[in-house]
Amino acid sequence: MTTTVTRYLLSRLRELGVGHVFGVPGDYSLAVLDEVLDTPGIEWVGTAAELGAAYAADGYARVKGFGALVTTFGVGELSAVNGVAGSYAERVPLLHITVGPSQAMEDTGASVHHTAGDGDFTRFARAHESVTCAHGVLRAPDAPAEIDRVLTAALAHRRPAYLRMPSDVGALHVPPPRRPLVRVDPIVDPGNLVRFTDAVRRRVASAESTAVLADYLVDRFGVRAELADLVAAGLPHAVVAMGKSVLDERDPLFAGVYAGALSDDVTRTTVDDADLLIRVGVHLVDTTSGGFSQGYPDGAGIELQPWEARVDGEIFADVPLAVSLPAVTELVRAHHGVTPTPPRLTDPPPPDTTCSALTQEFLWDAVSRSLTGEHLVIAEQGTSYFGIASRRFPSGCGFIAQPLWGSIGYGLPAALGAQLADPARRCVLLVGDGSAQLTIQELGTIARHDLHPVVVLVNNGGYTVERAIHGPRAAYNDIAAWDWRALPAALGAENALVMTVRTNHELLAALDAAHACTDRLVFIEAITDLDDVPELLRRLAEGVSIRNS
Amino acid sequence: MTTTVTRYLLSRLRELGVGHVFGVPGDYSLAVLDEVLDTPGIEWVGTAAELGAAYAADGYARVKGFGALVTTFGVGELSAVNGVAGSYAERVPLLHITVGPSQAMEDTGASVHHTAGDGDFTRFARAHESVTCAHGVLRAPDAPAEIDRVLTAALAHRRPAYLRMPSDVGALHVPPPRRPLVRVDPIVDPGNLVRFTDAVRRRVASAESTAVLADYLVDRFGVRAELADLVAAGLPHAVVAMGKSVLDERDPLFAGVYAGALSDDVTRTTVDDADLLIRVGVHLVDTTSGGFSQGYPDGAGIELQPWEARVDGEIFADVPLAVSLPAVTELVRAHHGVTPTPPRLTDPPPPDTTCSALTQEFLWDAVSRSLTGEHLVIAEQGTSYFGIASRRFPSGCGFIAQPLWGSIGYGLPAALGAQLADPARRCVLLVGDGSAQLTIQELGTIARHDLHPVVVLVNNGGYTVERAIHGPRAAYNDIAAWDWRALPAALGAENALVMTVRTNHELLAALDAAHACTDRLVFIEAITDLDDVPELLRRLAEGVSIRNS
Repeated sequence: MTTTVTRYLLSRLRELGVGHVFGVPGDYSLAVLDEVLDTPGIEWVGTAAELGAAYAADGYARVKGFGALVTTFGVGELSAVNGVAGSYAERVPLLHITVGPSQAMEDTGASVHHTAGDGDFTRFARAHESVTCAHGVLRAPDAPAEIDRVLTAALAHRRPAYLRMPSDVGALHVPPPRRPLVRVDPIVDPGNLVRFTDAVRRRVASAESTAVLADYLVDRFGVRAELADLVAAGLPHAVVAMGKSVLDERDPLFAGVYAGALSDDVTRTTVDDADLLIRVGVHLVDTTSGGFSQGYPDGAGIELQPWEARVDGEIFADVPLAVSLPAVTELVRAHHGVTPTPPRLTDPPPPDTTCSALTQEFLWDAVSRSLTGEHLVIAEQGTSYFGIASRRFPSGCGFIAQPLWGSIGYGLPAALGAQLADPARRCVLLVGDGSAQLTIQELGTIARHDLHPVVVLVNNGGYTVERAIHGPRAAYNDIAAWDWRALPAALGAENALVMTVRTNHELLAALDAAHACTDRLVFIEAITDLDDVPELLRRLAEGVSIRNS
Repeated sequence: MTTTVTRYLLSRLRELGVGHVFGVPGDYSLAVLDEVLDTPGIEWVGTAAELGAAYAADGYARVKGFGALVTTFGVGELSAVNGVAGSYAERVPLLHITVGPSQAMEDTGASVHHTAGDGDFTRFARAHESVTCAHGVLRAPDAPAEIDRVLTAALAHRRPAYLRMPSDVGALHVPPPRRPLVRVDPIVDPGNLVRFTDAVRRRVASAESTAVLADYLVDRFGVRAELADLVAAGLPHAVVAMGKSVLDERDPLFAGVYAGALSDDVTRTTVDDADLLIRVGVHLVDTTSGGFSQGYPDGAGIELQPWEARVDGEIFADVPLAVSLPAVTELVRAHHGVTPTPPRLTDPPPPDTTCSALTQEFLWDAVSRSLTGEHLVIAEQGTSYFGIASRRFPSGCGFIAQPLWGSIGYGLPAALGAQLADPARRCVLLVGDGSAQLTIQELGTIARHDLHPVVVLVNNGGYTVERAIHGPRAAYNDIAAWDWRALPAALGAENALVMTVRTNHELLAALDAAHACTDRLVFIEAITDLDDVPELLRRLAEGVSIRNS
C-alpha cells in the first residue's frame, strides 16, 4: 500500500490536530491543493494575502497546538515570512509549505516566473532559514523522513518549520506512515534533578514568604495544569501579560498582571518583595516588563525554564519544566508555611453610564467587564494590548497577543485562525485603526467563512503607540482616513452588526448588543481622542523613548 | 562642517532623483523619519503596509531610476522582503533601509520587541541577503562609505540594496558628501570590442534579412535612445512584453509583441524567420516567451547583453550594451541592404458599441484604444497583463508589469509609486479582483495623496489565471465576494468616480468618462464571465499546466 507525498504530509498534520490549512494558491501549488480539498478532516482556508495566512496559522496554532500554511514559491513564501518569524519569536509551532517549480524545471535552470531568472531555486528558501527551527526540500524517496524530521523538530522546539516542495513531488508515491510521529521529550538528567530538588527543599524551608510569577512558556510547554497545582498549594501568584490566561485571574490568591515597576502596587510588592519568588516559564520582554524594570533580583529565587532550572542562580541543566514544576509543587506542599494574605486588587470603578466622551480607561474597563469564560481575546500589539493586558479577566477567558514580536496587523488574521480553531469560543478582537489597515482584507475572509467574532476597532486617527513615544503630531503617525462603518459590508460582511460609539453610554450599549448577537459578525468602531492612551502605555512609552535615543 | 548619518543618506538619495520615501513607521525609526520630514525635496509617503511600500518604491524606481523605503526592524523589513525580491528579479534599483534597536541595546543583548528575544540582532537581515546585491549595517565612522558602497552597487547591478541602521546611528555626526556618488561603468575590453565589431560586420554583410528583438534590459540599462537609432536604420523590430514601451509601437517597421509560438503570425515570422536576428537586452521568461517556444535558434544571430555580447554563439566578454549597441547600429547603417517590407499588423476590429456582454477580448482592445502617449499603464501579472501586453500602444505610452517575478498584488502599490514619480503622466492600472485583494489598502494611500489614476478592476470572481491552468471550478480559485463599488469610498476615496460596466457599450462610455475626468481618482469595475480569458493566456496556460505536472 502506498500514499502520495502530499497525502503523507496531510495525514501527519491531521495527526497533530490540524483541521484547517491556510494560504493563497499559486499555479505551482494547485495540484497539492487538490489533495487538500480531497482530504477528509482538512479544510482549505484561502486568505486574501499570504501574510494573513501566516498570522491565521499562528492564531490557529495557539489554540490547537499546531498550524499549517501553503504558499507558492518565491512571491508567496516571502510575503508570509514576517508571520512565520513571529511564530519563531513567540514559540508557536507550525509548518510552512511552499510549492515551487517542478524538479525538471530545476534541472534545466529555466528562467520561470516567481524566480530571479537565474536558475537558482534555493534563493528564497534562505529567507526562512533564520526564522524556522528546521527546514528542508522534499525529494523522493526521503520525503516522508524529511516531513517527520521537521515536524518533530517544530514540536520539540515550539517553533515553525519550513518545507519546499517541487510541484511534481507531491504526487510521488511513498509508503504511508507506519507509526505515530515521534515526539522528542526533553532530556532529564536524574542526578541534576536530585540536586535541584535538594536545593529547592532548602530554599522553600527557609522562605518567609513565597510567590509565583508565571509567563507564556507555561502555555507553550503545556504545563498549565501543573501550574494550577503549584498555586493551589496556597501561593500568591501573578502573571506576565504575555502569559495572560495561564492563571485563573479570579483565584483569591491571584495578585494581578506583573509589569515591573509599572505594575499596580499590590502586584509589584507581591512579586518583588517575596522572600522566595518561583518563576515559571518567565521570559521578560521590554514591553511586558515595563522596560525591564522588574524589582526582583534576576539571579535569586527559583526559576523554571523549558529545558533547565535554576535555584538562586545555580543552573541545573536538563531539568525541564515538565519535571521541575511538579517537583517544586510537591516540596511546597510538604512545607507548612504561613498562610498568605490574599492580595487585594483594586476593583475598577462602577461603570459610568453617562454620555461623557469615551476614554481609553473606560473602554478597556468596559470591555474586560463584558468578557466571560467563553471568550477568547485577541489584543493587537498597541493601544489594545496595553489597555486590556492589565485588566482582570474572568476564569477561563483566553488571551492571544504578540508583545515580543509586536507585528502590527497580526490581530485580525490571528482572530480568523483562532475562531476557526475553536468555533465554540467567541473571539473578541481588540485592534487599533493603524494596525487594522495592514491586514484589513482578512475581514473579508472572516465574513466568507461566516465567522462571528466581535471586533472592537479603536478609531483615533493613527499610530497611537508611536505618538506616545515620539512625534505626537508628526505626519508619519497619521494614517489614511477610512470610513470604518462602510468597510465590513464592502469586504463582503454585509450581514455584520456595525456600530459606532463615541460615549461611555454608547459603548456599554454596543457591548451588550454584541454579546446578545452571537450569530453575526459584530464590528464596533470606538472613537477616542487622538492623545488619549491607556495609563500603562503612557508610562512605558516614556521609557522606550529614552532607550531608543 | 558635519552632517548626520541620516542626512548624508538622504542627500545621496536626493542626488539619485529620489523625491519620495515610502514606508510604515515603527518606534525605532521615528527619529530617522523626523529627518525625512525635515529634508527639502523629500516627501514621506506612509503606506498602509510595508509590502505596499516596497511595491510602491519599485514602481517609483521604474519611472525615476531609483527608489527608497524605510521600515522598522524585524516585523517591518520582513513584511517588505517579497517586494524587494521582485525588484531584485526584475532589476529595479532601490534602497531598503530598516531602523532597529540602538547599539546600546544590541550590546546588552536585551530581549526587546521586534526581535526573537535571543539577543541576535543580525537574524532578520539575513532574509535580505539573497534578494539584494549589497547589504550592510551602518556604524560610525564608516557609515558614509557604507552608504556609498551599497548605492553604487545598486546602480551598477540595477538591483536593490539593503541597509540596517541601529536607531542611534542616524543622529551621529559625519562629514557631508565631498563629491558626487561614484558611478561604476561596465568594463570595456577594447580587444574584444574590435573582434566583436569584425564579427558583426561579416554577419551583417551576409544577412539577407535582419530584424531586431528588444526587451526590458534596454530600459534597465538606459539605452532606449540607442535602440531607437538602431531600428531607425530601417530594421523591422519586435518587442518582448516585459520590455513593452522600449520601442515606438506606431513605427511603420514595428512588428508587434513577440511571445514565441504564441505570437501573431506577422510578429512570429518577422522574428523567427529573419536571416539575422539582433537581440537587444533580451531575457526570456516562460510567461513572456509562450513557455520558451521561441522559433529562433538560441545561439544564432547577434545578442547584446548588459555586460557581454555574442555573435552566432561566440561570446565577447566586457562588450557591454551601452557600447555594443551603437557599434551594431553603425555597421547596420553602413550596410546598404534591401529595404524591408513593413510588417502588416492586424488592426483590432472596430469597436462594438452594442450592449452585448463585456468580453475580455473587447475589454483589452477598448482599453488599448483609449490610451494616449501621456498614459502609463500598470498591468497586474494575471489576466490584465496577458490581455493588454499584446495590444499595440500609442507612441510614448508607458508600461509597467512584472512578468518574471509575477507577484500578485504588485500593481496597485506600484501605481501609487509611479503616479507620485511622474504626476504629469496619468497611470492606468489594470488589475483583477483576486490580485487587488492582496494590497487593496493602498487604494487609501492613493486617495490620501489625492492622486488621480484610472483603475480598471476586472471582477470575475477569483484567480482567473489559475482557473485557466488548473482547477477551473476548484474552491481554492474562488475569492471572497467584495462590494467593489463601495470600496473606494470606504478607503477614503469618497471623491472617486466609480463606475460598474457589464457591456461593451458601458465600458466605452466609462473609458470616455474616465479620460475626461482627470482631477479625480477613477475606479471602473468591469464585470466579465468567470471562464472568459484573453486568448494569449488561454494558450499559455495549456503549456504551464503540462510543465507543472
